Amino acid sequence: MITSSQNPKLKLVRALTGRVKERREENAFVIEGVRLIEEAVLAGWKFRFALYSDGLTERGGNLINVLTAQGVEVDEVAGDLLQKLSDTETSQGILAVLQFSQIPIPDSLDFILILDQIRDPGNLGTLLRSAAATGAQVVLLPPETTDAFAPKVLRAGMGAQFRLPIHSMTWEEVGQISRSANLQMYLADMNGKSCWETDLRKPLALIVGGEAEGASEEARKLTPRKISIPMSGNVESLNAGVAGSVLMFEVVRQRTTLLTESA
Amino acid sequence: MITSSQNPKLKLVRALTGRVKERREENAFVIEGVRLIEEAVLAGWKFRFALYSDGLTERGGNLINVLTAQGVEVDEVAGDLLQKLSDTETSQGILAVLQFSQIPIPDSLDFILILDQIRDPGNLGTLLRSAAATGAQVVLLPPETTDAFAPKVLRAGMGAQFRLPIHSMTWEEVGQISRSANLQMYLADMNGKSCWETDLRKPLALIVGGEAEGASEEARKLTPRKISIPMSGNVESLNAGVAGSVLMFEVVRQRTTLLTESA
Repeated sequence: MITSSQNPKLKLVRALTGRVKERREENAFVIEGVRLIEEAVLAGWKFRFALYSDGLTERGGNLINVLTAQGVEVDEVAGDLLQKLSDTETSQGILAVLQFSQIPIPDSLDFILILDQIRDPGNLGTLLRSAAATGAQVVLLPPETTDAFAPKVLRAGMGAQFRLPIHSMTWEEVGQISRSANLQMYLADMNGKSCWETDLRKPLALIVGGEAEGASEEARKLTPRKISIPMSGNVESLNAGVAGSVLMFEVVRQRTTLLTESA
Repeated sequence: MITSSQNPKLKLVRALTGRVKERREENAFVIEGVRLIEEAVLAGWKFRFALYSDGLTERGGNLINVLTAQGVEVDEVAGDLLQKLSDTETSQGILAVLQFSQIPIPDSLDFILILDQIRDPGNLGTLLRSAAATGAQVVLLPPETTDAFAPKVLRAGMGAQFRLPIHSMTWEEVGQISRSANLQMYLADMNGKSCWETDLRKPLALIVGGEAEGASEEARKLTPRKISIPMSGNVESLNAGVAGSVLMFEVVRQRTTLLTESA
């Protein structure tokens, strides 16, 4: 039983839920809650350790048993020490530190997502969740985008981070990958051509920018074609998570429901 | 200059940013920030008063001038009193109390949104923003859905609340409106028919449920047809804001890009 807030495991959790720098140096990150930990187990991620406190649900208790049976180091934490570490207002009484490991980029690419200056953790998580739901093969994160393994992003991603290759890299590397896979680049942009009138069936990379600034100069240097979601009324823009998701599902719709090109 | 936190205007703002009960009794709500207040001005909403503090941007200063010219009561607030009222970490130094007024439901309905047990403020705001962007004519909110005029919902809605008829009502009234407009009811449901294989061009009401519980019993009693967004991989579900938005844009896509039925 851990009873001191100065316990090294608790100190590590505090550091990892804070800054991305700590996560990179430790090559680890923290996940909270029964559901997210279940997803990590099912996807075969490597656990450094898990912590729980009194009052777990039955499902949470089962999960502790599964982790213990797998040889994961599991400790009980006294009182409200775990709640104090929690990023959420109501901790579910269980968290884990996972070893970061990068899922490799597949050899043959035909659908990738590039997230340009997405700073809002909720939007980033939503976009990752939708990327997983649409079968995007990899998500590339240029330097200005928020860390995909921050607590709020993990929560909004609902486990997408455990199954989707997510790679942080420079814009130069983004360009190299896109060119060598011969991907047509598209950029979500209000002033672009309607996505419903654009053929999205050939291999492509979709760039989605943050709401505040739109696309970065580096994204524009890749000379993407601009595509938009037609809107009615006086509305100027959509939530970035929604805009990217609508475009990703349009790619899937075209690829699954339209006949292949006759020409 | 307001210098006391016990000033009646500040007390009213505190009450209105809190509970929905206060907003209903006062028939008023609070909006924060330059952009949202600009939207309210442009949409012709009635202001009770506005408050600002030192250090406004130039754009914010212009807005104060516009409000004053329109005869709105505007007061400066001393020090950090306004920041203390703010729902956000960094107040933009301007807020306003608006008189609530309900935009009437149009006579002829062919596209309405029903939000069933949407409790997350961010999701509700996102859905309202997408409803405005897709030209949904009205949004109906049954009793279990979060108040659309709570601060976080207003922020995520980005002004959608000022242009879209949003009506809170019982499920019985929801049913009456849908029946009298002869709308086909559809329910977003993972186990439904693909939205890409469903003809969504005729007048319809789309029911979107919360993530946690799915559709309520009351929604199911309206015997809607279930429609889904096809997903790949191991993904179970989408963010409710994303799912509803993808379906709304699918309605628009079909209505704007497909030929009318020959039969």
